[in-house]
Amino acid sequence: MLRRTYDSQVCSVAWTLEVVGERWTLLIVRDALLGVSRFGTFRERLGITASVLKSRLDRLVAAGVLDRSPYHNRPVRYEYLLTPKGRELGLVVLALMHWGDQHLAGDGGPPRTARHDGCGGPVQGQLVCMTCAAQVSPDQVTTQLTERAHQPQP
Amino acid sequence: MLRRTYDSQVCSVAWTLEVVGERWTLLIVRDALLGVSRFGTFRERLGITASVLKSRLDRLVAAGVLDRSPYHNRPVRYEYLLTPKGRELGLVVLALMHWGDQHLAGDGGPPRTARHDGCGGPVQGQLVCMTCAAQVSPDQVTTQLTERAHQPQP
Repeated sequence: MLRRTYDSQVCSVAWTLEVVGERWTLLIVRDALLGVSRFGTFRERLGITASVLKSRLDRLVAAGVLDRSPYHNRPVRYEYLLTPKGRELGLVVLALMHWGDQHLAGDGGPPRTARHDGCGGPVQGQLVCMTCAAQVSPDQVTTQLTERAHQPQP
Repeated sequence: MLRRTYDSQVCSVAWTLEVVGERWTLLIVRDALLGVSRFGTFRERLGITASVLKSRLDRLVAAGVLDRSPYHNRPVRYEYLLTPKGRELGLVVLALMHWGDQHLAGDGGPPRTARHDGCGGPVQGQLVCMTCAAQVSPDQVTTQLTERAHQPQP
């Protein structure tokens, strides 16, 4: 069970940040989406201490974002693979990447491209209306609380 | 200038998290997207100390995510409004919200709905191929480093 620092917030954004908002956590998910699965590879890519990495991986396993399974015995070594729930964070990670590409990468352009396996075209996150299929900008979206907003998280 | 804790990372995800990855920062952006603009209102909604809130707002202003302008003189009071760059974080925030709706909200359903102003339909973040217009799952996306990945951030 994660510590619930945002526990006064009945909001799916806050709940999600409880799972992935800790420093390094979304970069671990990014690397897992890129195919990284082993402790040593995560550690080398992120340049963080073993204890910080272990605590983040343990939390992601507890939250059902990663599955841990042994890939070697004597000594036992584990690999960490994204669950389907974890893979669905791909949109969050690509939305962060795209915003950085647009606003932080500068004249040199993006350090990484994201392409559709089907046709090779560039992939972007977009807001889409499920009813009329229009691509929608954040300014064209209105959010409203539901009844559910008055109950705590289960 | 923000402290560059991820500075060994030539990656737009890491760069973006330098701007919005600190605790509370994305919840400030969320509230700004909901129309919150005044210090006291942010503080009341987030339940954080004035000094933490001030440091987060100052950083978001320095990063060009929020604009600060006076709305009252004697004493001077400021309001904080999202810049166009800041509003573009709407996709990140809605992607976090949607993931929480799907995986953390439980049987009660989402505490907040997001609807298209045009037709009232529900709005979701999706990955879309810019070439063939297909809706793409994270499993159908391959990313590749570019030349740019070998240069530091400008």
